[in-house]
Amino acid sequence: MSTVKDLTHLLSDEAKSRRNSPLKTAFKYFNDPNVVFLGGGLPLSDYFPWNKITVESPAPPFKNGIGATPSTAEEKIITEVSKNAAENSRSDDIPLSRSLQYGHTGGQPELLNFLREHTQLIHKIPYSEWDIIQSIGNTQSWDGVLRTFTNRGDTILVEDFSFPSALETANALGVIQFPIPTDDFGIIPEKLAETLDNWVGAKPKLLYTIPTGQNPLGSSLSADRRKAIYKIAQKHDFIIIEDEPYYFLQMDTYTKDVEARQGKAVHSHKQFIDALVTSFISIDTEGRVVRLDSFSKVLAPGTRFGWIVAQKELLQSIIKLHETSIQSASGFSSSIINGLLNRWGQDGYIDWLIGLRAEYTHKRDVAIDAIEKYFPKQVTHYNPPVAGMFFTVQFDASKHPNFATEFDSDPLKVETALYEKGLDAGALLIPGSWFTAKGQTNPPQKPQPVDEATKNHIFFRGTYAAVPLDQLVLGLERFGKAAHQEFGL
Amino acid sequence: MSTVKDLTHLLSDEAKSRRNSPLKTAFKYFNDPNVVFLGGGLPLSDYFPWNKITVESPAPPFKNGIGATPSTAEEKIITEVSKNAAENSRSDDIPLSRSLQYGHTGGQPELLNFLREHTQLIHKIPYSEWDIIQSIGNTQSWDGVLRTFTNRGDTILVEDFSFPSALETANALGVIQFPIPTDDFGIIPEKLAETLDNWVGAKPKLLYTIPTGQNPLGSSLSADRRKAIYKIAQKHDFIIIEDEPYYFLQMDTYTKDVEARQGKAVHSHKQFIDALVTSFISIDTEGRVVRLDSFSKVLAPGTRFGWIVAQKELLQSIIKLHETSIQSASGFSSSIINGLLNRWGQDGYIDWLIGLRAEYTHKRDVAIDAIEKYFPKQVTHYNPPVAGMFFTVQFDASKHPNFATEFDSDPLKVETALYEKGLDAGALLIPGSWFTAKGQTNPPQKPQPVDEATKNHIFFRGTYAAVPLDQLVLGLERFGKAAHQEFGL
Repeated sequence: MSTVKDLTHLLSDEAKSRRNSPLKTAFKYFNDPNVVFLGGGLPLSDYFPWNKITVESPAPPFKNGIGATPSTAEEKIITEVSKNAAENSRSDDIPLSRSLQYGHTGGQPELLNFLREHTQLIHKIPYSEWDIIQSIGNTQSWDGVLRTFTNRGDTILVEDFSFPSALETANALGVIQFPIPTDDFGIIPEKLAETLDNWVGAKPKLLYTIPTGQNPLGSSLSADRRKAIYKIAQKHDFIIIEDEPYYFLQMDTYTKDVEARQGKAVHSHKQFIDALVTSFISIDTEGRVVRLDSFSKVLAPGTRFGWIVAQKELLQSIIKLHETSIQSASGFSSSIINGLLNRWGQDGYIDWLIGLRAEYTHKRDVAIDAIEKYFPKQVTHYNPPVAGMFFTVQFDASKHPNFATEFDSDPLKVETALYEKGLDAGALLIPGSWFTAKGQTNPPQKPQPVDEATKNHIFFRGTYAAVPLDQLVLGLERFGKAAHQEFGL
Repeated sequence: MSTVKDLTHLLSDEAKSRRNSPLKTAFKYFNDPNVVFLGGGLPLSDYFPWNKITVESPAPPFKNGIGATPSTAEEKIITEVSKNAAENSRSDDIPLSRSLQYGHTGGQPELLNFLREHTQLIHKIPYSEWDIIQSIGNTQSWDGVLRTFTNRGDTILVEDFSFPSALETANALGVIQFPIPTDDFGIIPEKLAETLDNWVGAKPKLLYTIPTGQNPLGSSLSADRRKAIYKIAQKHDFIIIEDEPYYFLQMDTYTKDVEARQGKAVHSHKQFIDALVTSFISIDTEGRVVRLDSFSKVLAPGTRFGWIVAQKELLQSIIKLHETSIQSASGFSSSIINGLLNRWGQDGYIDWLIGLRAEYTHKRDVAIDAIEKYFPKQVTHYNPPVAGMFFTVQFDASKHPNFATEFDSDPLKVETALYEKGLDAGALLIPGSWFTAKGQTNPPQKPQPVDEATKNHIFFRGTYAAVPLDQLVLGLERFGKAAHQEFGL
């Protein structure tokens, strides 16, 4: 076990100025049998108009797939949670009288226990002073992390193409987003090192990255790149924010050989866990990683339930922010999710995740097969994703016959033309430039030299997550034909 | 109908810098039948592991009181919400496939419709361009409002004693909280006017007030005071934030005459609505009020569901913040609350609120009876609350026999002594000074002249909401005896 580093010097003015309420000193008498406590403003749970919730869910091992509607009793699992613990209640349920009351900003203990056990199983964090707090999803976690670490005018590091909502969160808080070059496999560690070795002015406090199934790039960082990036973080004293909503949408590697696909699928729990990519938190010897986890892609976005894994000291600062903002996740969400997960157990949850892996692997295969079939090979490049919801297809705009004439040698003009041509043909993919991270410090950093090999590349982002497979193929066929036409092929 | 005023000049730098995502322009093709939309990253609802939720609640008219556990079928109402709308679904239910999906940051239409109808019934807002958006409770709404309107270093107006969490939210954002004097009936309009007429430097943008059942004071502003304050807001161009979690914990006025109490209770829906105090939003002719509403005290805090009522233009700025932070309330909360409210109907909901009024009126009566009986009249003053969860008891510290000697004529030292004496006797009430709002602008405003009549007054805040009635009486008896002892009476 390694020892955690004190990183409180990286906290924001907002986080540093948060005070403890004097009321907290009184709350230690809340359960004192000798004291009648007239200090708190809690409504009586007698007046909560929900006496019992019953929820129907699929039961492990999900042998017909995770998307199948359970029909037999054996395929169903029933979660029943009452206002007050009843005779037939499970001891790991969260009664509604507690989940629907104030309190537990960090999270309900039963659910945190499940998640701690899950986290240890998956990530085997190499220091002991880590913990978990709840959030209401990674969008809110990221907003909270920015408020906890950055002031207006501070700079953070981001992938050169990133999730627009995450960039906008930083933008509105007045935080400069400095882009780091990426390739098919995400952030290029050498470029990151070079950038920071030559950095002018106050160093960035955070690197924000979506390391697995990056949005929009669809790329995933290898274990080696993660280790190299972690060393750079140690050298330049910044925190790595790993935003990992897609972590469990990892897939078997793509193969054109349809017969070989079956053989590549993971089946056992051990195979599944071993096949997962090394997370930043799993190599975090110093407590320098803040991991944002979420049920949005694994169970459902509307649970509005996520969690943050980090060293305890830093989590305390985020809890203080949550106390005066979100307070806690929904009690319905907490009781229902906790009820389901404890009934499934850690093993049943892994069964679910294995099922999810199979679904996404198949969708990805269908998408890549269609790209392979319909897109003009002469001008395109793609790297089949191994995680996430997104694929990208790159085009060499300079190969457009009218590049130097009609398009003034501007690749973005080709991008617009191709987007519109696709739309006319009845298929919408998102132009890559819409995800561009832009930001410059003052004084400015030294510009990256122009890469002659890639300067005319454009790309489009598509998803295989949200559409039925026949539509997916149809959409890609249409876009591929439009591309042939646009490039005169 | 009056016309709404453009108040966008009061927006914060953060709100002004929020940009629209280019992705939004693509989303107009989301439901276009001619376009295969591969643009969005939504998980399929087939993979949400919740097929059906069934919730048991009490049914109107709650004739045994709102705290009674329903036993007969007639006393129960069952809300059943499925993943996909089924044959027996109600058309006003929110299916889980939608509530658990991304989207609807402003709120699910069915629930917003119910709340709009409710708002119109209660407040009869005098301009037409108002609307409602969801939040996850007033603590988060207030955080969002501060971010939408204030920059670090800005000043807001607050009651001289206020909710510590709300003050801390502003403090951490670097917003100065300038206190306005209050008396038994809340903010004193003349003092507010005087303060602003003599204001030095940039005017405050907001007045933050808990007008009904104020925390900690227990006071409620009269309709006349609200009208006077609204005029001052018009004159000095600030926005009134009315934080109203206790609005429906209004009670019949206190009477010592036990027999007369029955006669004062409201029974009909019309009586109930007519008896409600005039809200700021109901006299808001210009769209200058932002009302924060919540189910926390009316249904349950853990719903983490609240809503903001204001002019549409200002709400748009808050929605943009929500898109990159909380995203939305929990889908479970939305489906369950909406299911219950629509089954109750507007009338059933009013029945519930009438039941709540009866419960709180009774609790308040028990508390005030006990104060009347056990507290030393010679040194105390109280004003029976007509709303909320809290009562306060004022003490004249200068009447302490050792005021000038042991306590150096410092009322706060008497407060501490009395707090500790109460605690030793087994009763905890919160010292009023813990709620003090402190804040001074730079350059400073002219200090309020010291009020000789009240300068030695201290107070304690207690609640009748959270404890069984026998404990409430026992606690007040203990504290009253401790006060007698401390003051040598």
